[in-house]
Amino acid sequence: MEYKHYFHNSYRNPVCRSWHSTATLKDTNLVFPVFITNEAGEKTEITSMPGNFRYGYERIVEELRPLVEKKGAHLQAVMLFGVMKDEEKDRKGLSFAKSPVLKALPLLKTAFPSLLLCVDICLCAYTTHGHCGALFKDGSINLKKSQKRISDMALLFAQIGADVICPSDMMDGRIYYIKQKLISQELHMPIMSYSTKFQSGFYGPFRDAAQSAPSFGDRAAYQLPPSGRELGIRAALRDVEEGADFVMVKPAMPYLDLIRDLKNTVNVPIACYHVSGEFAMIYHAAKAGALDLKRAVLESITGFMRAGATVIITYFTPQLLDWLNENN
Amino acid sequence: MEYKHYFHNSYRNPVCRSWHSTATLKDTNLVFPVFITNEAGEKTEITSMPGNFRYGYERIVEELRPLVEKKGAHLQAVMLFGVMKDEEKDRKGLSFAKSPVLKALPLLKTAFPSLLLCVDICLCAYTTHGHCGALFKDGSINLKKSQKRISDMALLFAQIGADVICPSDMMDGRIYYIKQKLISQELHMPIMSYSTKFQSGFYGPFRDAAQSAPSFGDRAAYQLPPSGRELGIRAALRDVEEGADFVMVKPAMPYLDLIRDLKNTVNVPIACYHVSGEFAMIYHAAKAGALDLKRAVLESITGFMRAGATVIITYFTPQLLDWLNENN
Amino acid sequence: MEYKHYFHNSYRNPVCRSWHSTATLKDTNLVFPVFITNEAGEKTEITSMPGNFRYGYERIVEELRPLVEKKGAHLQAVMLFGVMKDEEKDRKGLSFAKSPVLKALPLLKTAFPSLLLCVDICLCAYTTHGHCGALFKDGSINLKKSQKRISDMALLFAQIGADVICPSDMMDGRIYYIKQKLISQELHMPIMSYSTKFQSGFYGPFRDAAQSAPSFGDRAAYQLPPSGRELGIRAALRDVEEGADFVMVKPAMPYLDLIRDLKNTVNVPIACYHVSGEFAMIYHAAKAGALDLKRAVLESITGFMRAGATVIITYFTPQLLDWLNENN
Amino acid sequence: MEYKHYFHNSYRNPVCRSWHSTATLKDTNLVFPVFITNEAGEKTEITSMPGNFRYGYERIVEELRPLVEKKGAHLQAVMLFGVMKDEEKDRKGLSFAKSPVLKALPLLKTAFPSLLLCVDICLCAYTTHGHCGALFKDGSINLKKSQKRISDMALLFAQIGADVICPSDMMDGRIYYIKQKLISQELHMPIMSYSTKFQSGFYGPFRDAAQSAPSFGDRAAYQLPPSGRELGIRAALRDVEEGADFVMVKPAMPYLDLIRDLKNTVNVPIACYHVSGEFAMIYHAAKAGALDLKRAVLESITGFMRAGATVIITYFTPQLLDWLNENN
Amino acid sequence: MEYKHYFHNSYRNPVCRSWHSTATLKDTNLVFPVFITNEAGEKTEITSMPGNFRYGYERIVEELRPLVEKKGAHLQAVMLFGVMKDEEKDRKGLSFAKSPVLKALPLLKTAFPSLLLCVDICLCAYTTHGHCGALFKDGSINLKKSQKRISDMALLFAQIGADVICPSDMMDGRIYYIKQKLISQELHMPIMSYSTKFQSGFYGPFRDAAQSAPSFGDRAAYQLPPSGRELGIRAALRDVEEGADFVMVKPAMPYLDLIRDLKNTVNVPIACYHVSGEFAMIYHAAKAGALDLKRAVLESITGFMRAGATVIITYFTPQLLDWLNENN
Amino acid sequence: MEYKHYFHNSYRNPVCRSWHSTATLKDTNLVFPVFITNEAGEKTEITSMPGNFRYGYERIVEELRPLVEKKGAHLQAVMLFGVMKDEEKDRKGLSFAKSPVLKALPLLKTAFPSLLLCVDICLCAYTTHGHCGALFKDGSINLKKSQKRISDMALLFAQIGADVICPSDMMDGRIYYIKQKLISQELHMPIMSYSTKFQSGFYGPFRDAAQSAPSFGDRAAYQLPPSGRELGIRAALRDVEEGADFVMVKPAMPYLDLIRDLKNTVNVPIACYHVSGEFAMIYHAAKAGALDLKRAVLESITGFMRAGATVIITYFTPQLLDWLNENN
Ligand SMILES: [Zn+2]
Ligand SMILES: [Zn+2]
Ligand SMILES: [Zn+2]
Ligand SMILES: [Zn+2]
Ligand SMILES: [Zn+2]
Ligand SMILES: [Zn+2]
Repeated sequence: MEYKHYFHNSYRNPVCRSWHSTATLKDTNLVFPVFITNEAGEKTEITSMPGNFRYGYERIVEELRPLVEKKGAHLQAVMLFGVMKDEEKDRKGLSFAKSPVLKALPLLKTAFPSLLLCVDICLCAYTTHGHCGALFKDGSINLKKSQKRISDMALLFAQIGADVICPSDMMDGRIYYIKQKLISQELHMPIMSYSTKFQSGFYGPFRDAAQSAPSFGDRAAYQLPPSGRELGIRAALRDVEEGADFVMVKPAMPYLDLIRDLKNTVNVPIACYHVSGEFAMIYHAAKAGALDLKRAVLESITGFMRAGATVIITYFTPQLLDWLNENN
Repeated sequence: MEYKHYFHNSYRNPVCRSWHSTATLKDTNLVFPVFITNEAGEKTEITSMPGNFRYGYERIVEELRPLVEKKGAHLQAVMLFGVMKDEEKDRKGLSFAKSPVLKALPLLKTAFPSLLLCVDICLCAYTTHGHCGALFKDGSINLKKSQKRISDMALLFAQIGADVICPSDMMDGRIYYIKQKLISQELHMPIMSYSTKFQSGFYGPFRDAAQSAPSFGDRAAYQLPPSGRELGIRAALRDVEEGADFVMVKPAMPYLDLIRDLKNTVNVPIACYHVSGEFAMIYHAAKAGALDLKRAVLESITGFMRAGATVIITYFTPQLLDWLNENN
Repeated sequence: MEYKHYFHNSYRNPVCRSWHSTATLKDTNLVFPVFITNEAGEKTEITSMPGNFRYGYERIVEELRPLVEKKGAHLQAVMLFGVMKDEEKDRKGLSFAKSPVLKALPLLKTAFPSLLLCVDICLCAYTTHGHCGALFKDGSINLKKSQKRISDMALLFAQIGADVICPSDMMDGRIYYIKQKLISQELHMPIMSYSTKFQSGFYGPFRDAAQSAPSFGDRAAYQLPPSGRELGIRAALRDVEEGADFVMVKPAMPYLDLIRDLKNTVNVPIACYHVSGEFAMIYHAAKAGALDLKRAVLESITGFMRAGATVIITYFTPQLLDWLNENN
Repeated sequence: MEYKHYFHNSYRNPVCRSWHSTATLKDTNLVFPVFITNEAGEKTEITSMPGNFRYGYERIVEELRPLVEKKGAHLQAVMLFGVMKDEEKDRKGLSFAKSPVLKALPLLKTAFPSLLLCVDICLCAYTTHGHCGALFKDGSINLKKSQKRISDMALLFAQIGADVICPSDMMDGRIYYIKQKLISQELHMPIMSYSTKFQSGFYGPFRDAAQSAPSFGDRAAYQLPPSGRELGIRAALRDVEEGADFVMVKPAMPYLDLIRDLKNTVNVPIACYHVSGEFAMIYHAAKAGALDLKRAVLESITGFMRAGATVIITYFTPQLLDWLNENN
Repeated sequence: MEYKHYFHNSYRNPVCRSWHSTATLKDTNLVFPVFITNEAGEKTEITSMPGNFRYGYERIVEELRPLVEKKGAHLQAVMLFGVMKDEEKDRKGLSFAKSPVLKALPLLKTAFPSLLLCVDICLCAYTTHGHCGALFKDGSINLKKSQKRISDMALLFAQIGADVICPSDMMDGRIYYIKQKLISQELHMPIMSYSTKFQSGFYGPFRDAAQSAPSFGDRAAYQLPPSGRELGIRAALRDVEEGADFVMVKPAMPYLDLIRDLKNTVNVPIACYHVSGEFAMIYHAAKAGALDLKRAVLESITGFMRAGATVIITYFTPQLLDWLNENN
Repeated sequence: MEYKHYFHNSYRNPVCRSWHSTATLKDTNLVFPVFITNEAGEKTEITSMPGNFRYGYERIVEELRPLVEKKGAHLQAVMLFGVMKDEEKDRKGLSFAKSPVLKALPLLKTAFPSLLLCVDICLCAYTTHGHCGALFKDGSINLKKSQKRISDMALLFAQIGADVICPSDMMDGRIYYIKQKLISQELHMPIMSYSTKFQSGFYGPFRDAAQSAPSFGDRAAYQLPPSGRELGIRAALRDVEEGADFVMVKPAMPYLDLIRDLKNTVNVPIACYHVSGEFAMIYHAAKAGALDLKRAVLESITGFMRAGATVIITYFTPQLLDWLNENN
């Protein structure tokens, strides 16, 4: 009779159970990624992410209305991605000025004043080469020009009405330059940095969605190696030092330990991006009968919050809103 | 333009504000201390804690009913203290078997099946000398007898219907002995240990309430010195190792750093006892116009949760329930 | 020119790169799960885990020989699971004494003296009801009998030649009892505790492999809830205190943050079980073309080591050995 | 006989007791707040803080002499606050140039060369509106002008002879601007930042002392919310990054956990301000007989040091000096 | 003018300097190792540690008197080692009952009642084979007999008057058995465990002092490997769990990181043993003119305290006492 | 039979042993300090460090060839120090432009393209007064001029071919200025900062080697006091913030706790300098027979890696390469 622990004692009574401090999912924790094009009336399913679509910018309000106006838990935040045709892009990426996101922002703000509009800021959707920054002639990254152009893009999107500026490019110093430009114009929206973003094999379907695979080379020069734990932590610390208000871990489940590492290190809210490859794994395994989709998604999301994230960018947002409402 | 932080950016939007992970008070976080006597019909105000009373055990159900049956936030948990007359006590403290708490337990359980009944376990309310343990003839603590007697008391209160066993005596090894006795009888209620309890100057009014000041000497031999940070942490670790399900810091605000230390160290829910001297400080300062009582209490409670406690034992429970309901 | 970090500076030179302390995978980090039956000559593919088989115990040496005798990186460790037919089982689980693992142990030890033989210890493969412990008549867990029976099973497997005892049952106190029995017999093999094992939706295919789904109810009473971070940490601390030499997190990727939490807390090597549902997700997503299987597996394993695990139990062991050899 | 800890063993022998590393209070840990006016000969008791006074600047040397020249423990440091009449103030706060503190500094330096002269730097004592920064016409904070004016004030006070510059205004970036101005003038005194200052209900009596309540609105826009643990930590980290030599937690006891959080995070000495409301609580509770004043004050101060502060700004400094001398 | 830190600002003023919390050496932090024999009148210099001696037990009072009765800083604590001739020893080590330490203890207690008498507890000084435990016939450690014999030795030394029991043997479970025996006899002196003791090349001269080198084999089986950081931490945690009041790191400077690791992990005072090889390194380097002995010793001791030790066992105690007195 | 730990269980099997995550020394972890002069053909043994030499720059390739071209473990990195005659130096230290290191760099790069060339950057080897920075006329440090001159020196050495820039001067802000100059010239080699460098008594022999003792005063104004733990941590954090890629602790063994502190705090590789006084201690103690040199060196290096360093600058590099090769 020498063992002493009996864990269930402390859990059985519901009042005692409430004393265990576990965060629970609310609709405000969810951010839904939305892909927008300049094509009037477009609604194209993304082949590799069944159930997800690219929409023409003027359809976006009506497509989101059922989610935003749902009773109970409802859509509170979106992450907007611009998708351009190759012929709309240019080598320098200055085509960001023609981004469909710029057209969608005022429509959405007018239709849904309380919906939080997060915008992805990166050149890769606007450059013909598909790299995230400006290039030297030899194809290597021109850091100074990248910093300038990305902060110009951020400033423009902020002026047009974005609520949260979300740079995903991973260029050194871009948070600094964006923050300085925003402050200089007295623009006080927060910055969510894709700070801890790894060079991952789980991004495949996204490139289909955003039609943004690099035309040559890869992004190893500016994304983090999967083994780079200390680099991932430093990247978040650096971005907070440069002015980021929120930091992000991407992908989510394969880097769940980094969410915890950031929770232990930085003192800002932590976002995670439940990426397309994670969507695909659950989707296909469930379809093959190896998993129950709802249970697998809920266990995944529970894990993101347990590890310390409070902002969850996920393609499963519509289903999660329904499941949240079922519980009440 | 070199500064980079603008903290309010990340707070202004309500969705973003929800991303900052701050625990908020719910009624299940509150435990109300209740003093019970064997006197039929007694309702005596405790002089040094205006608005707090000792009740005869048969009145207790009716006195608590308005709190338990309040709409919205309502009383979810009590901590029961037995108060005996000197002539009811004995030198060994075996009079615990005649404790008014034993009479109140079944009445409360029947009347309010979902109210969590925490019981304070200590000999000081039942010994004529007012010490928390058994004594040798020279007045020093007899540890073995103390361990036996306190674990006997805990077993009896558990058998009569207590939901949570809360030993406040600070004797070495008592959690071990209590846990072993409970396990041996297949009793699986949790133990909340007064683990990190300091020899404090803020307990004065309580002794009036519980009529339990020691008749000679003090409790320095078994309470922790106020400077004893590492001892306070070890005491909680030891009690968890011996089988405690919850640990406690007492007093609360003067040892708020220890709540944080325990949150960083143990992995069980943390309780804090907002003691009588703390009640008195806020009460008298507010009466003198130096503080706003409601604001001071709410800021105190916010601090307990910010530091990591999820169980708050406070004499302000009735007011807090009202204030919680006002917010909704 | 105010930004100051340029992360790639410290990585470009190969000598400098070696200064970044990242653990790299070796064959000794891998443990291959093997399912063994009493059927002479059996080799049955496990439907839900293509490429994985149940083998009759007398085939096991020949089946493993190519992996053990591979040049370069080769099989260094296995985790042995016994699979019994329903008619071989009994209500109490005492049929563990007829486990095919007991027959395989001496064969394997003789054939491959340096192969590390880890054995899974649990009653669920041997009870007709499929629960991990002994039951009272009402179907609830009888803790004392469970502790006795599981430690008897561990002792028997240790005496027959297991190198590492791996209790997966999650009963309170079982590490204590196993350790005491082993010490009393002067048996000094290490214990690897399935300490931090969650009630997960990612176990489905395993139950097919081990034919061990519970016939009624589920294992919620003795596995941890997915949100239970502090419980998961406490479970590992408790098992180390009771005598575990290694602790385990299971599943692996969905609980990667717990691997990091344990790395920060306990001071023993940490194992993780890359479970059947994880296998299925990568397998099916790769088959559907959404992922590159090799890249996804390698990134997963890199994550386990980055988070702090040095023991990785995975169905991908054969492929990983090949990939390790390709690099040299 | 299975329990193993007996905490008092390690405490009984005085040599062993000295091995427990607990910081003990010395006179150099204490900073006495002093309120100074431009009124010749003034000595006005502060109604809400009995025993504390506002002094005309030419009286200040003689009033402090008994404390500075006390035998044994004696006054080592003061925090100087200027108190102006409404008619002396202006909307911009440029009246800081006529602060009585500027007159007191040379008198004190001459009389007591080794007394450390800390000066509070903020505009709220000098603006007619009572806010801590410069305002736009709409009453909101003009950050750029605030940064400029506060750093001008700091520079002036540094040039006149302050030993420690203590900005209490909470404007973003002010430490950066002050540090740059001091460095540019080769002024090398340290900066003590009121970094972790909460919007608290415990400041009431101070506003009476300093006659500085805002005439409209409150300071919620630039003080921290009581629940803002992570913000409080970030504020200290930011100020150290910008050049602060010491950081402060204010109030002290209600935020004792933040003192510990800073001790665990920053690597500079930590100050705490034992504010007027804390003074009032102890004073009134002691007057009502609920507490022993000396014991309550000493236990409070012990807590500040236990949590990690080594600089304690307290109105009880005179009594503490006497109590320190009693012990020797 | 963008750099912001100027570290010396915060150090120049002596009051500010006192705010930096650095522990300073006092005489109570020092423990002097003393070697005692049964030889009447012996005073033999230890060849490999010039200036250190073995004394016959009846000389010990007079030899220590000048250190104990020194003005100002003086000897407060000793660690007593018994040194026996080979012919006094036996195979089982039961000769501890004839240890010269047992004779010295009452003499020292009578002569110097406030001198703290720490006693080294191990069999290696009393066994003919020189190993720290009891052996099986094959020369391997017999753990059960070792535990019994070492706890018998501890009990005897405690009964004769030792103030602190210091087991140096590293046998698993010995703290548990010693603590149980002491508690059972109501003996309440603290235990200082040589918990984190490495198999080191810096022990050479000690074996000359104590004449205790093993006659065959080495102590690798029961001391920790130099790379064993996690083992060293676990060993301290285990000993605290079993009842140790203080833990020790040995050697000191080569394992300074472990002192810090323990300071961050356990919550008891930490001792370090500045071993004979460390003495020899400083002694010989100073003799060769490569170092200044006083500066090297003081910097070493400062390091031990900076890392977190408050108990320093060092052969330089006599010189350190003189240097402490010089400063006052 | 109540003790539960038996540490050796988890170590005995070689597969299990590999699960304990201990870093092992490789040749890439070692950096060999080399002293270079402008004297043709010079090879002068450094009196206080027997076996170490100063070489004329044109000899350096041939002297290092046997180490670089050794089979198996071989020399991978050097730290180059320039040594100038007094008559070559000037008051301002501008003589760095005539440093023999500038002559050696291209020779080494040509001869050994993969050898990592780290260069020490400081003025003390080039100023007639021997201080590390520029001085005002009164002999105090002129910080602005020091920052300018040191960053000029760094830029020059980077342009001539250094692989790693290693500033050892400890002037505030120098990392910032060096990084800005390197970035402005698109030079992307890493910076290794001597960040955590203490004012130590263990540097004696080095000054003989580098002939760089200050002609008056000492370096207390810009090196850290030995008790300054928090300062040592802040210095590393500051340097990383300013752009350092690697940080250093110097000396190594006497500040082993700081290596661990940095490992717990910064997220960059940590170097340590095993200084001349440490070399001397081991050398002389071994010569006197008190230590075995090889065992003492290996235990020291094991400690540096155990504490968290992956870059070890040591005079024992040649011997260590041989010992590494012996093991294979
Ligand atoms: Zn991009
Ligand atoms: Zn009591
Ligand atoms: Zn099972
Ligand atoms: Zn103000
Ligand atoms: Zn020994
Ligand atoms: Zn220098």
